[in-house]
Amino acid sequence: MRIVRIVPPSATTPLAQPVFAILDGQTLRILSKAPWDGGSPTGETLPHTDAIPLLAPVTPSKIVCVGRNYAAHAKELGNEVPKAPLLFFKPPSALIGHNGTIVLPPESERVEHEAEVGIVISRRCKGISREQARDHIFGVTCVGDITARDLQRADGQWARAKGFDSFCPTGPWIETDLDAQLDVRDLRISCTVNGATRQDGRTSQMIFPIDELLAYTSRMMTLEAGDLLVTGTPEGVGPLVHGDRLEISVEGVGTLACAVRK
Amino acid sequence: MRIVRIVPPSATTPLAQPVFAILDGQTLRILSKAPWDGGSPTGETLPHTDAIPLLAPVTPSKIVCVGRNYAAHAKELGNEVPKAPLLFFKPPSALIGHNGTIVLPPESERVEHEAEVGIVISRRCKGISREQARDHIFGVTCVGDITARDLQRADGQWARAKGFDSFCPTGPWIETDLDAQLDVRDLRISCTVNGATRQDGRTSQMIFPIDELLAYTSRMMTLEAGDLLVTGTPEGVGPLVHGDRLEISVEGVGTLACAVRK
Repeated sequence: MRIVRIVPPSATTPLAQPVFAILDGQTLRILSKAPWDGGSPTGETLPHTDAIPLLAPVTPSKIVCVGRNYAAHAKELGNEVPKAPLLFFKPPSALIGHNGTIVLPPESERVEHEAEVGIVISRRCKGISREQARDHIFGVTCVGDITARDLQRADGQWARAKGFDSFCPTGPWIETDLDAQLDVRDLRISCTVNGATRQDGRTSQMIFPIDELLAYTSRMMTLEAGDLLVTGTPEGVGPLVHGDRLEISVEGVGTLACAVRK
Repeated sequence: MRIVRIVPPSATTPLAQPVFAILDGQTLRILSKAPWDGGSPTGETLPHTDAIPLLAPVTPSKIVCVGRNYAAHAKELGNEVPKAPLLFFKPPSALIGHNGTIVLPPESERVEHEAEVGIVISRRCKGISREQARDHIFGVTCVGDITARDLQRADGQWARAKGFDSFCPTGPWIETDLDAQLDVRDLRISCTVNGATRQDGRTSQMIFPIDELLAYTSRMMTLEAGDLLVTGTPEGVGPLVHGDRLEISVEGVGTLACAVRK
């Protein structure tokens, strides 16, 4: 099942607040609220057309990210492989959706793409085991951990370099049912810039796999339903410049596309 | 005006969801929603008794914090004074309220208090000037930026060391009207542990004053109504151990008290 977030056209809903919906072929089935908060179909449907943008399909209370979780990527930036998951946060204000625009801030001369697998939490949890982790995954999405590399190096803390508005493209939807052949432990994660492949890895190359990331994170902080865990990037990060088109693909989910502009 | 957040006793509201309220002497005047989202008094009132705990008076989309914003504190930890505000995030899952309990995690052997002035944002903003900053302050509260100092040093990124559940005590309320004699640019910020003074500074000692922090932060990220800006700690940080009682006071606001336990 594909979960999207949209603003229904004003003819349908005068107040035009974003809503969650199931994307069923070309039909949008509106949900009463977020599915991880117990939302169910209202019965209202809409045809899905390009006139209805797909917003980031999440409204997380926090976005927990993992740095240097692929050995080849740690190495390409001259970093050691961490002994424990290296956590940081991105602010929800950085989220944009499918076909959104990454805006290059004037403060940075080097903004880079990092293609990542996003995991959406299904229900509140604290101190879960690796074995329990699978039962706390609502679904999987594509995420860009866009990073001002020069500011990341200058600041030490990564909040600014990774926290600009538009630096967390997410979508196009949450896939809740991976095919029977697919498992979050071994999904292809890749990205292209203007059609040329820049990153191409597999989640099986993670230093800390997804179940371990969930267990580790939930030992220190309560994960809320709908929170987003962003699981690290494979090697091949590189610059984005004005006019670029970035596409991030996760096997079994789909492809998130973004424009890039100054 | 003092804004608090409470769970009304079940006799009054069967569903027992937290609500915002005005604390007017010993009377709680329930609000329809968060005041920065247009909440207004419902007409329902309650006597304020110790049986009604004061929750953290905020439900922020993000908590933006500032490191090393007092020169004497930067020096006491052996750090240089930063050339620009050093930002980091705490997760909303770390919030606890007045008379809450800071839980020392087994991962750390050295948890420390950092007493800070918290600023609550009144309305969504991006790219505001220092002159506009004052108009975007809803009110002021007391915040503890509780920090596992050993993990902060070991991890490099501060998300884990400052992100444990209970590591962001906030309250007891938001004061929206400082006395005519008081200004956020020069408020006393202090803390005691078991009655002994540990930290005692003034916001006038900040390297980057509050209006500059708001302007700087809003250049990179949209601040939402209700977001919490935590503005740095004066010198005197020190350890917390099982059984301690921490009190954080901001002049013109009040005193936030917390227990500490393993």
